Amino acid sequence: MPADTPPADALVAALDFSKGNGLVVAIAQDAKSGEILMVAHMNEQSLRETLARGEVVYWSRSRGLWHKGEQSGNVQRLASVRVDCDGDAVLLEVEQVGRAACHTGKRSCFFRRWDGARWVEEGEQVFDPAEVYGR
Amino acid sequence: MPADTPPADALVAALDFSKGNGLVVAIAQDAKSGEILMVAHMNEQSLRETLARGEVVYWSRSRGLWHKGEQSGNVQRLASVRVDCDGDAVLLEVEQVGRAACHTGKRSCFFRRWDGARWVEEGEQVFDPAEVYGR
Repeated sequence: MPADTPPADALVAALDFSKGNGLVVAIAQDAKSGEILMVAHMNEQSLRETLARGEVVYWSRSRGLWHKGEQSGNVQRLASVRVDCDGDAVLLEVEQVGRAACHTGKRSCFFRRWDGARWVEEGEQVFDPAEVYGR
Repeated sequence: MPADTPPADALVAALDFSKGNGLVVAIAQDAKSGEILMVAHMNEQSLRETLARGEVVYWSRSRGLWHKGEQSGNVQRLASVRVDCDGDAVLLEVEQVGRAACHTGKRSCFFRRWDGARWVEEGEQVFDPAEVYGR
């Protein structure tokens, strides 16, 4: 890597977007508690925007470029980026503004746990989605 | 859901394999420490095998059905399963046998952290891959 390679290029160079048809898996983890908040995808553009903004921008397979929290205000401030051994996933440590990552108003999108026979809802209900999204 | 639906069917019914061309994202988290060990994919068959064995079986996009740790002995004992809000990802709490999830011998596959200018290697080196895989 040349010494004058811009940082974003050096970061992107470690990633392998080819296996996921241009996407890598992106996991958001609470920087303080270690709780997994959500998982989504990124393409190269969304990763570069994330680095430039310091807030997480995903690539939604249905909606395209997705600045998380743009509507609700619940943005994710980027604290650190890790990459896995084969470069097809990133682990983002974030500060979750508004304390909820999920559009349902739950803190984490993984609020359903299998108890061996059925799904049980857990996790803190931080906001009422009807108030935030007006639906 | 009828009361006599077999448990595995009821679990699988909450998942949406369609968005990922038959796959969902599967994140393995250490059940005790909360550390993220790795991320891979599952199809319906690998998820059913995981439930039947009590050990994690992924679907590798290059190798197919993949009973994690079959060669190294570093299997992942399943402690719990969570599903995200839109059903296209599962979060698996596991007990990592052998203390290392990564084929490099690192505890976690996410052993490279971006320091703002370059990738820095972190994380515990648990085993020497040359000894375990003979290469």
